Amino acid sequence: MSKIRIGIVGYGNLGKSVETGIMQNKDMELVGIFTRRDPSTIKTVTDDASVYHIDDARKWKDQINVMILCGGSMSDIPEQGPYFAKMFNTVDGYDTHAKIPDYFDEVNKNALESGKVCIISSGWDPGMFSINRLYAEAILPVGNTYTFWGKGISQGHSDAIRRIKGVKDAKQYTIPIEKAIDAVRNGEMPELTIREKHKRECFVVVEEGADKAQIEQEIKSMPNYFADYDTEVHFITEEELIKNHSGLPHGGVVIRYGKTGISNEQNHIIEYKLDLGSNPDFTANVLIAYARAAYRLHKEGSSGAKTVVDIAPAYLSSKSAEEIRRSII
Amino acid sequence: MSKIRIGIVGYGNLGKSVETGIMQNKDMELVGIFTRRDPSTIKTVTDDASVYHIDDARKWKDQINVMILCGGSMSDIPEQGPYFAKMFNTVDGYDTHAKIPDYFDEVNKNALESGKVCIISSGWDPGMFSINRLYAEAILPVGNTYTFWGKGISQGHSDAIRRIKGVKDAKQYTIPIEKAIDAVRNGEMPELTIREKHKRECFVVVEEGADKAQIEQEIKSMPNYFADYDTEVHFITEEELIKNHSGLPHGGVVIRYGKTGISNEQNHIIEYKLDLGSNPDFTANVLIAYARAAYRLHKEGSSGAKTVVDIAPAYLSSKSAEEIRRSII
Repeated sequence: MSKIRIGIVGYGNLGKSVETGIMQNKDMELVGIFTRRDPSTIKTVTDDASVYHIDDARKWKDQINVMILCGGSMSDIPEQGPYFAKMFNTVDGYDTHAKIPDYFDEVNKNALESGKVCIISSGWDPGMFSINRLYAEAILPVGNTYTFWGKGISQGHSDAIRRIKGVKDAKQYTIPIEKAIDAVRNGEMPELTIREKHKRECFVVVEEGADKAQIEQEIKSMPNYFADYDTEVHFITEEELIKNHSGLPHGGVVIRYGKTGISNEQNHIIEYKLDLGSNPDFTANVLIAYARAAYRLHKEGSSGAKTVVDIAPAYLSSKSAEEIRRSII
Repeated sequence: MSKIRIGIVGYGNLGKSVETGIMQNKDMELVGIFTRRDPSTIKTVTDDASVYHIDDARKWKDQINVMILCGGSMSDIPEQGPYFAKMFNTVDGYDTHAKIPDYFDEVNKNALESGKVCIISSGWDPGMFSINRLYAEAILPVGNTYTFWGKGISQGHSDAIRRIKGVKDAKQYTIPIEKAIDAVRNGEMPELTIREKHKRECFVVVEEGADKAQIEQEIKSMPNYFADYDTEVHFITEEELIKNHSGLPHGGVVIRYGKTGISNEQNHIIEYKLDLGSNPDFTANVLIAYARAAYRLHKEGSSGAKTVVDIAPAYLSSKSAEEIRRSII
């Protein structure tokens, strides 16, 4: 049986996690990593991975079944998604929730023209959390859905702190507030403010002579990122940051509390919870599973942009339909 | 917009829950309840429900979009599933795991001939738990999946106790063993025996003069049902049984513990947990959501038997694709 031939576009944390994740899937092989940097400067995680310049990707049109786009949602994916949709089946983890409808339309147009399947906004949120919000709401139409994130490192918030003058490095943890989760599980169906759902904890390394009080003030008052939250700031040494905060753990939970019965007298809770040692590794593994789906859907003659809710679960599994019915159902 | 017209076959706990569940879905209406009993003897939960004899169901071929089969998996569904597949789109909750492959083939044959869509083994296990086992395994190929049930009432086990001579009534709770769940969450990836995963607690009402010691012995030694478990037996009065054990709560959790990274150094946990006030109500609501899917798939020209893993999540939602991308993804 021939393997599904995968390409990786962008070689940061996520790209590296896709590279190692593919090794867990016997029906796949990595054809190449495509980067904007000089390929000769790239040291890959696995020994035998090939690295090419992103401008050469088009030459691999017939050799690669699915391109997994591993760039950032801020500026890379909005450009690369529509571009690669003209030539390849793609999977990406585009996660700017508010812009997903427009991004979908743009990718869809190109994918319909090229006859390719492009799965957007895969990963865990958007992604597995989206699927679970949908299932839970469809099953319990009367109820409320809550999403909590963390405890985990938020890259975006860590970056925002690093941009402050005098900050050398920083890591930010998003932490769900247990009291709020308990209220949801207790069936109080609370209306929760931003501040009531999550708090933020920051570990900051400053440059010599920096004004810590000023930095703390700047962090806590930063609009969108911190101003609406209770935020704790800890100043630590670079050694402590490396020793205690080098990982990229994350996670979270989607909870739906719903009611059934002739007078809504029965209560139900659906919870989908993730506890992730490595956010990029887990995200990569979701993208890889959807690469299998993209490959199969394209083989069946499907085309266009899709999100995770448009794809039947069985497309993600390496098992046959018969095997699934026998061993998983 | 015309509503999806639903029929209910079989009017026990599940049928009644489907009847009330439909009221939560504005895009659906109940056309009729079909029973083997004399329709004039049936008192429905809602005032305006119509009841017909099951033999007359065929006359409703063109008036009903989807039949929801609410009979038992022991003897009703194996017969009714293939029969109704010849005339109707159907949804059922057939839950005899070992026989699902054969049942699928039989329904599939008839559904392909009639051009109908028949979704089998929907509900929560099989059903939502099956979906979650599949997703979790596809995302974390290196790992173990565990399913725990309860705390909840098992109808099958309660029935088994009731068949013992001298027993007037009984309720049996399946209880997951916390120590085992903790071991899974801690990443011990344990191999668990049947006895290590669940225990069983029985509340039994006996007839006057019955030999309690003998009954307790019979319960605890019953093969398949109790012999492989640690089982507690409590003899209580009929009043206590009615007062404290009349509900049908259930639930459970699917947990996958998996590893990623070049040397499997990262640990991840995916958990899907249900806490259900009423097992039949929740099961009914899953069947109803899949009835929407069956209706839509049939409209698109699909036919044949399907399980929950063959159906894209979006088919379950009453929201449009655009609305889903805007508000759920």
